[in-house]
Amino acid sequence: MPHIPLPADLPGITSAFAFRPETARPMRELVEILLRGPHTLTSGEREMIAAFVSSRNDCHFCQASHSAAAAHHLDGDYALVDAVKRDFEHAPVSPKLKTLLAIAAKVQESGRQVTAEDVARARAAGATDLEIHDTVLIAAAFCMYNRYVDGLATLTPTDPDVYDRMGRRMAQQGYVSRD
Amino acid sequence: MPHIPLPADLPGITSAFAFRPETARPMRELVEILLRGPHTLTSGEREMIAAFVSSRNDCHFCQASHSAAAAHHLDGDYALVDAVKRDFEHAPVSPKLKTLLAIAAKVQESGRQVTAEDVARARAAGATDLEIHDTVLIAAAFCMYNRYVDGLATLTPTDPDVYDRMGRRMAQQGYVSRD
Repeated sequence: MPHIPLPADLPGITSAFAFRPETARPMRELVEILLRGPHTLTSGEREMIAAFVSSRNDCHFCQASHSAAAAHHLDGDYALVDAVKRDFEHAPVSPKLKTLLAIAAKVQESGRQVTAEDVARARAAGATDLEIHDTVLIAAAFCMYNRYVDGLATLTPTDPDVYDRMGRRMAQQGYVSRD
Repeated sequence: MPHIPLPADLPGITSAFAFRPETARPMRELVEILLRGPHTLTSGEREMIAAFVSSRNDCHFCQASHSAAAAHHLDGDYALVDAVKRDFEHAPVSPKLKTLLAIAAKVQESGRQVTAEDVARARAAGATDLEIHDTVLIAAAFCMYNRYVDGLATLTPTDPDVYDRMGRRMAQQGYVSRD
């Protein structure tokens, strides 16, 4: 049960957003820019970074919903998303994305873990400054969203179909509320 | 040295904001609402929660600047801010604020650490649902800002006077850019 009275018909972060629309607006805008704004990383790649960090933070709602969003950007390839979460070094993704996931893994623990060598490796694999910046910020931002969702004990559905539908909506319609 | 080319004349998060104005806008809005928006917690109390979490994340730039902002909201009482960061259970703050700091401390580790008992204690000390919500979100948000600042290795001044001036500006003018 949520720690404060949140709308019972809304799952996860959407119930917290409904409780506090003032803070929801910039939080929705931020994730929209980070995961769906114009970029040299695909939305599938960025959603995988989000799902990966959420998985390491053990936030079921965020990792399941962003895994589904990633899969919907990747022609339904849940296996690829699972491989990244399980062992990204051996997942069939580009060498560049592996170096960015390594940076995201460090940020999930602490920003202070990121070394000049981590960044040099990403750059050698072709990562741009903006890609490195946004990887750090996506990882940092999901350390916020994950803690927000779990710190309020929001409703966490268990049915994978719920997340699949949610992920399709996230991939197709995005994060900025239209109401 | 920063991991990516950031404006050399700007310290900490302001250099990252200048590098990526698109994400800076919602990030500035969010902290403005959380720390300076209309509220039953004072800005001094909310800045202390921000400084406390930043201190636990070992982010020097954020903890020093938000400590200074808190002190400027509290008639220059740096000693109180230091007491909260050092040992909040024995700091001369209200019983309610202590229960909120206890929740913030849990969120800093993981949202999953917050228990119904933590929240019941806060409520018994007079905390409202909104105060509990915003404490969770301030703590979660600073887990983002701290990782962003350190994950990019932004310039970290060491001179306390720099932070004192910065904190005065933050307390008086806030976080939303006027340019």
